[in-house]
Amino acid sequence: MARIDDTSDYRIAPDPQAARLTRAVGGTDQTGAAVDLNVVEERPLTIYLNAQEIVTAMTIGDYPQYLALGFLRNQGMLHEGDKITGVDYDEELETVVVRTASQTTYEDKLRKKTRTSGCAIGTVFGDMMEGLEGVTLPATPVRTSDLYALAATINRTPSLYLEAGAIHGTVLCQGDQPLVYMEDVGRHNAVDKIAGWMLSENETANDKTLYTTGRLTSEMVIKTALMGIPVLASRSGFTAWGVEIAQQVGLTLIGRMKGQRFVCLAGEERLIRDIDPAQVADEPRKSGRKGSA
Amino acid sequence: MARIDDTSDYRIAPDPQAARLTRAVGGTDQTGAAVDLNVVEERPLTIYLNAQEIVTAMTIGDYPQYLALGFLRNQGMLHEGDKITGVDYDEELETVVVRTASQTTYEDKLRKKTRTSGCAIGTVFGDMMEGLEGVTLPATPVRTSDLYALAATINRTPSLYLEAGAIHGTVLCQGDQPLVYMEDVGRHNAVDKIAGWMLSENETANDKTLYTTGRLTSEMVIKTALMGIPVLASRSGFTAWGVEIAQQVGLTLIGRMKGQRFVCLAGEERLIRDIDPAQVADEPRKSGRKGSA
Repeated sequence: MARIDDTSDYRIAPDPQAARLTRAVGGTDQTGAAVDLNVVEERPLTIYLNAQEIVTAMTIGDYPQYLALGFLRNQGMLHEGDKITGVDYDEELETVVVRTASQTTYEDKLRKKTRTSGCAIGTVFGDMMEGLEGVTLPATPVRTSDLYALAATINRTPSLYLEAGAIHGTVLCQGDQPLVYMEDVGRHNAVDKIAGWMLSENETANDKTLYTTGRLTSEMVIKTALMGIPVLASRSGFTAWGVEIAQQVGLTLIGRMKGQRFVCLAGEERLIRDIDPAQVADEPRKSGRKGSA
Repeated sequence: MARIDDTSDYRIAPDPQAARLTRAVGGTDQTGAAVDLNVVEERPLTIYLNAQEIVTAMTIGDYPQYLALGFLRNQGMLHEGDKITGVDYDEELETVVVRTASQTTYEDKLRKKTRTSGCAIGTVFGDMMEGLEGVTLPATPVRTSDLYALAATINRTPSLYLEAGAIHGTVLCQGDQPLVYMEDVGRHNAVDKIAGWMLSENETANDKTLYTTGRLTSEMVIKTALMGIPVLASRSGFTAWGVEIAQQVGLTLIGRMKGQRFVCLAGEERLIRDIDPAQVADEPRKSGRKGSA
């Protein structure tokens, strides 16, 4: 397992050794030999907004408060003006209650449902494109040397992915420094936990980059844009509609980023190509990191 | 691109050349050179059950009728007794209306929502575990030679994954023969399209195997069990809860199946180990197929 010295620079790094996040599962391998595997957990977490039950998320179980806050914010159920008076997690009941000073508008949101392309039996409350009209992200320049540095650091950071697999990672970054590295069985949970952290810390978005292991589908692009983050990079592929939306809102979109390689799908004019790709170490085949299908 | 001779044995095989499923998208590579890429589409499809709008799925767009039927069936909104009187697809409106002879019980299902761990902003209508109490799948024996043969055939079948990436595949199989190979931007859409095909063809489930490129999370295991399919195999990893549920319902669960390797997580007693793994060709690194995170 790779260890790096700069994990301490993270505001939040993965904790692959945390007892609650994985479980030993027995099985047999192709030869019939017994094997004992370290497997990620999946737990229900029911999110309430005041007295209203909103959703039950299947999550790995860390940072439940950030997940609840970020989910409600990313679904447009919490607005900038809403004063949050409490975020109460009950481990035994597997619930988080987010309390606000005044009535919220979630009822409208619960009406219209869109099943998203991520993977799951997905639903976006409210119109997915809502709030996207008129959104233009700041034209933040992006150095390719920073993108390469981020990918290298993130890939060497000890993580549940490297430890147990079957999990998605998303990392909030600034310049060449990853700041908050969240993982979850659902990749949208990972993004929502980052959104919850940003909301809690009142963190600016316009100088950030979001790096994800997952595919760049429409809803991942929309979510990043609504969070106000102007750069989205991934090891994985992308859909045509994801690319189209990125171009519309001025999001710099980088896909299939592995070793020296990447594709810029939107925002070429904001890329500062300050490093020769040939100088970048290509990714060893044994890295274990994969783009997901 | 690999070509195989036995694609004609499929009842439904992928059609990676279908014009409507991919689009040319321009970008720049790491050297700044313009690249033209073949990228999968993502389209909304709104599913109605009689007069009731149920959900808008983001889908690649093929087999909309199977997707609608399978979605409603897998969500428990269509039961075995329901007489389906029509499945009408309107390409322009991007809708499918499933009509039944009598009133259905979807209203109950719309009440409780569970966000699943797949990837997306996911929701399972109704209680995910509903209908699973008392389910015991038939103890169908599974030959490891069949599993290896399936993986080899599926991996060599021309597909949108091999053509454009960023897509999930699920294949309904019988013995050593893949029958129906569905792909979609959402892996649950691919499974739902298979469920819709099975419903339309009145196909038996107890002699089938489901093969998927995606992770074996709880909701994938539950869905397979509710479809009555006794064997689920994947190239990818698994969650602890997915394994636990498979053990409970008697589902034979095979994960991390790549080349000679696999792990049996449930149903070892039903495996017939009739081939020496050393005789199986290991997967070339250049195969391009990846397990998804």
